[in-house]
Formats: sequence, C-alpha cells, structure tokens
Amino acid sequence: LKQKPFTPQKPIYIAACASVAGKKEKEGPLGAQFDFCGDDRFGKDTWEKAEAEMQKLALSLALKKSTLGESELDLIFAGDLINQCISSSYGLSVFRVPFLGIFGACSTCAEGMLMAAMFSSHLDRCASVTSSHFCTAERQFRFPLDYGGQRPPTAQWTVTGSGAFLYTTDVGDLENCDKDYVVKIADVMPGCIVDQGISDANNMGAAMAPAAHDTLLRYFNACHKASDFNKIYTGDLGMEGGSILRELMLGSDRSIDKVHADCGCIVYDVEKSDTHAGGSGCGCSAVVMAADVIPKMEKGLLRDVLFVGTGALMNSMAINQKQTIPSIAHLVHLRSVPLREALAERKS
Amino acid sequence: LKQKPFTPQKPIYIAACASVAGKKEKEGPLGAQFDFCGDDRFGKDTWEKAEAEMQKLALSLALKKSTLGESELDLIFAGDLINQCISSSYGLSVFRVPFLGIFGACSTCAEGMLMAAMFSSHLDRCASVTSSHFCTAERQFRFPLDYGGQRPPTAQWTVTGSGAFLYTTDVGDLENCDKDYVVKIADVMPGCIVDQGISDANNMGAAMAPAAHDTLLRYFNACHKASDFNKIYTGDLGMEGGSILRELMLGSDRSIDKVHADCGCIVYDVEKSDTHAGGSGCGCSAVVMAADVIPKMEKGLLRDVLFVGTGALMNSMAINQKQTIPSIAHLVHLRSVPLREALAERKS
Repeated sequence: LKQKPFTPQKPIYIAACASVAGKKEKEGPLGAQFDFCGDDRFGKDTWEKAEAEMQKLALSLALKKSTLGESELDLIFAGDLINQCISSSYGLSVFRVPFLGIFGACSTCAEGMLMAAMFSSHLDRCASVTSSHFCTAERQFRFPLDYGGQRPPTAQWTVTGSGAFLYTTDVGDLENCDKDYVVKIADVMPGCIVDQGISDANNMGAAMAPAAHDTLLRYFNACHKASDFNKIYTGDLGMEGGSILRELMLGSDRSIDKVHADCGCIVYDVEKSDTHAGGSGCGCSAVVMAADVIPKMEKGLLRDVLFVGTGALMNSMAINQKQTIPSIAHLVHLRSVPLREALAERKS
Repeated sequence: LKQKPFTPQKPIYIAACASVAGKKEKEGPLGAQFDFCGDDRFGKDTWEKAEAEMQKLALSLALKKSTLGESELDLIFAGDLINQCISSSYGLSVFRVPFLGIFGACSTCAEGMLMAAMFSSHLDRCASVTSSHFCTAERQFRFPLDYGGQRPPTAQWTVTGSGAFLYTTDVGDLENCDKDYVVKIADVMPGCIVDQGISDANNMGAAMAPAAHDTLLRYFNACHKASDFNKIYTGDLGMEGGSILRELMLGSDRSIDKVHADCGCIVYDVEKSDTHAGGSGCGCSAVVMAADVIPKMEKGLLRDVLFVGTGALMNSMAINQKQTIPSIAHLVHLRSVPLREALAERKS
C-alpha cells in the first residue's frame, strides 16, 4: 500500500464558502454563524426538494460572497446521502457548469475538497457542494417520521444543512477581499475502505472510527504528527466514535487528545439538544467547515488544520441482509496563510 | 461556460481491463468475449451481494491480466447504481487501496476513466470499476421481479455486468505484454447536467440524449468533428435515445450517423433478446468497452474513439414526486497507438 499524501500541483485556495442550515441547527452553538437558516422546507413541498434547494442556495450564496461568477467555474463536485445523489443533481442542475458526481457518504465534503486539490493543475476555479437533511435521511434510512421510532444513545442525528466551497488556483482572485488570511489546501490523502465488523446501523461512530484511525496512521507515517496541527477535525464520528478514535490512537500518537474535535459534536449542543451521540450526514462537516473552521482560519486563529471526513458506505438493504458496515475517511490538510504572503508568492 | 476539454498532464494508458457478465449477456453478441460469465448469483445468496462480487471479480481479473499487483495501485475510482453505491464499497473493500467513490448513474464508467486521466499527474497506476445487475436494479427502481411488470418498448434492460480498468502512466509497464497497440486517454470532457423535461422513467434514452448532444456540441466546438473518429460510442442511450441523438445532431454534424454506435445496442441482439430498446446500467458500457472496444483498439482496428457515457441522475422517489429527469454525459477520447511508438516516446 502506497502511503504518500498528494500535494496539489498548483496552489489552490478556498475563495469563499457558504452554509445553509435548518431549524435545529440554528438553535445550536453555530446558529448565528450560518449564512442562511430556513424552516427545513425551504419553500418546497417535499423534503427531497427542500434538500436540493439547500444545495442551490449554498452554491448561490458562496458565489455571492466571492467575486466569482458561475461562468468562471470549470467544474462542480457534488454528492449527498440520498439514493442516486439526487439532492446534488436536482439542486445544481440550474448551474451551467460541468459536473462530477462523487460519493463518500458523510465524508463527501472532504472528498470534494480532495478532488478540487487533485484537479488543481487542470483548473482555474471550481466548487464542491454537499448536503443532508434530517427528514430525507430518516425516511430513507430509518423510519417514517410519524412512526416516532426510538433511538439508542449511540445514534447520531442527521444535520439539515448544506455547505458549498469555491476554490481558485489564482490567489489574485482574493486580492480585493477583506481577508487577512486565506486558506490553502496543503495536501490530501484519500482513505481506504475499512470494515471492522460493526453491523449496528445505530452506531455509525464505531463503524467509522477505525477508518479515521487508518487514514491518520498512514498520514502520520508519511509526514507530520498530531501536534503539528492546531486542530484535527473528524466529521462526523460523534461522541461515541470520537472517543473510540482517541482510544485507538493511544498506541501511536496520544497528542491527538489535545487537538481533536468532531464536527458532529460541534454543530449541536449534544447535552441539551437530544441528538444523542451528536450530528451526522454529509451536511454536518460541510456546515461546520463553512461556518466555523474556515472563517476561524481566515481570521488567522488556526494555522494548520486536518479535516478527516468520515463516511459509512452502507445502505438499508445491506443492513437488512446482515452485512457489516464498510467505512472510509478522507483527509484534507488546510493551511491558513497571510493573504499578503500568498500574493507575494504569486508574483515571484 | 468554459468549453475546453482537459488533456492529461502525464500520458495515461489502459494497462488492462476485464469484464464479468451474466447469463443473458453471455447469450448476446459479445458472449464469447467476456472474461467471465456467471449464473447471475455469482455464488451469493442475495442479488446485492452478487453484484458486489462481480466488481471484486472484475478487478481481480484485470489485475491478473496485467503485470500489476494490488499494492501498486494508487487509487480506485468506483461507483454503481445501487443506493449509496454499495456494490462498489462491499465489492472492493477487500482491496487495500485508497478509494474514491464516484456517481454518474450509467455514465459512471466514463466518469472513472475521466477521473483517472485528470489525476494522472499524481499517479503511477490506478483503477476504475463499475457494475450493474438486472435483479438489483429491478427491485430498487421498478418492481419485485415476481410481479412480472410489463415494459413499454422504450424501456431498457439493465445489464448484469461489471467492468474494471487499470491505468498506468508508465508505458514501460506494457513493455512485455503481447499487444501491438496500447490505448491512451487523449483528452476528456465532463458533462453538464441537462434536463429537457422528460419525466418518463421508462424512456431514459430520451432523457439522456440531450445530455450527450450537449457534451458533443461543446466538444466539437472546442476541437475535432465527428468524422475525426473511427467510432463514437454512446453508453447507453439504447435504440430510442440513439436515434434522438442522431436527430439532434442533424443541425450541427451529420457525419456522426456514419460512426455512431450505442453500447446498449451492442451488448444485446436487440431484435431477438426481448430487451426492448437495448441495454442500460453502469455495467452496460463498462462491459462493452472492456470486452469489445478496447480489445479492438489494442488490435489496431480502431484508432480514435469517443466514448460518451450517459447517465440519468434520478431516483424512484423523484419520479414519484413528478420530477423530470436530469441527465449527464461525460466524454472520453481514447487513442490507440503502436506500443513501439509509445515506448520510443517514453525514452525520448
């Protein structure tokens, strides 16, 4: 197995990002930071149409926050949890931009960033978008909402939210933005599929933690150690999976304890919100990255960040057929650099 | 909208490919050309496990046909039609290789080739895999098999099959193979989402033809014309979609009539096989490319080939909610070059 992370061939920067979220998310700790919060229906008559609408809104808002126009995008990478990724295809069909569908379950946000980085030599500008919606996920993966099914404490709560990210390989695009720092994708490492035999669909954290562990181990074998980072965000292992990951890391790099945070535990106040083990869904890490992590990096509050997106690659039928849950974790190393420095580097 | 196709930064060659197919496909015109044909169950107790098994078999066979080992692969790109792409994640979890999930419905085979090409500067070797299965698709998208639902003449028949492709950026890997010609990815063009208002899930060809038209028009505006190619394979518009595409092309490039073929009309003898408008599914173009097109190119029978993978980006719920069908077509330009020439170019 090859171990080297991939480094973008052309520097690639996050030009802008935007987050759209629902009611429960608005009541959480990041409530005031989302670009737009809706009533979960987003003006549509079905949950599926509402989720698609969130993706459209998120990308539109990201474009509005940047100086870029839709016609300047070379590509959109997008995916989501709904069967055949329809939130992406229906939500983004209004954009006349080449489109590549991706699927990494809840790791899709990280996979989109990774794709943007690895395509950088071919691109000037691109976007990645993802979403999830509590109501579309419940009826697809679990029970009709009206059924009022009980959830065990290890279950996670699917975030109603969408995050869109715009990337540019020309930092000149950011020259007139009012940011002191810009966020660069330093390197990336795609995950391997890991299946440690967990078959409980109400304990995805336990299924995904070994995948996060695998990717982090491979990454730290190749370069860096946990203490090189201001923060390591997994998204979204939740309370249960997060503690399993920290335990798994005991044998190799204990210092992760000091810098680890999980997007599923950031988006909700886990104690007060009745979300059990925390948030999940493609939208979970997407809104945390777009509304919290990247803005902090753009203020220079965090310099080096690892974002390890985790996903459980199962469906309901596989669970019904008594299969275990294969998982994956894609890693993205983000670095905040002073805009002035990036502009100087570009000229030289 | 930017119009330029992407050219791989490092030359990238198809090192090997393999096809696995079912009973009905074995009875078709390509029956003798598949690397392995099974009884549709492939030794498993559910259709979903059988489809996953096909992906595992296809990639294993491709590796066997090449000089490459699993550990030499930098990445696998894979996706399929089943909810949350489980044929890929369950089928390929035995391979300890970084994995990126992709989704383009029936265009996934082309999307995988496109990804390999665009990642070429980062890679030495990689793979793409996809599959479909008549029985998994029927129960997921249409009716339980036992119900015996009627199909209108425009309906297509989901191919039971999987295709795996290995790529190398070092033609030296092919030095000792017994091929006179090797297949190179010359350039690629990702599709835009196109929705012309078709809402009949039994007429996917009509929904997808405008997407193929859109991508071909953009490609021919940027470079080339239809007559530059020995063959233009769409996969999989079927009889109905194929004829709509040729009609749409009348206004721009009539010469496509002479070179156009559709993977859905190649895999079955459409007149005799009761498949109505022909084959479909991610596996359709995958097995046609792996068992027919690429072998022909490796014999020097075809020099320049366009492969335009088409996909309908809907799901059953969207159709039930009376939504129309967004579609996409990803284009891959393959070129057959004499192995001796490629080796000489490498040395210079």
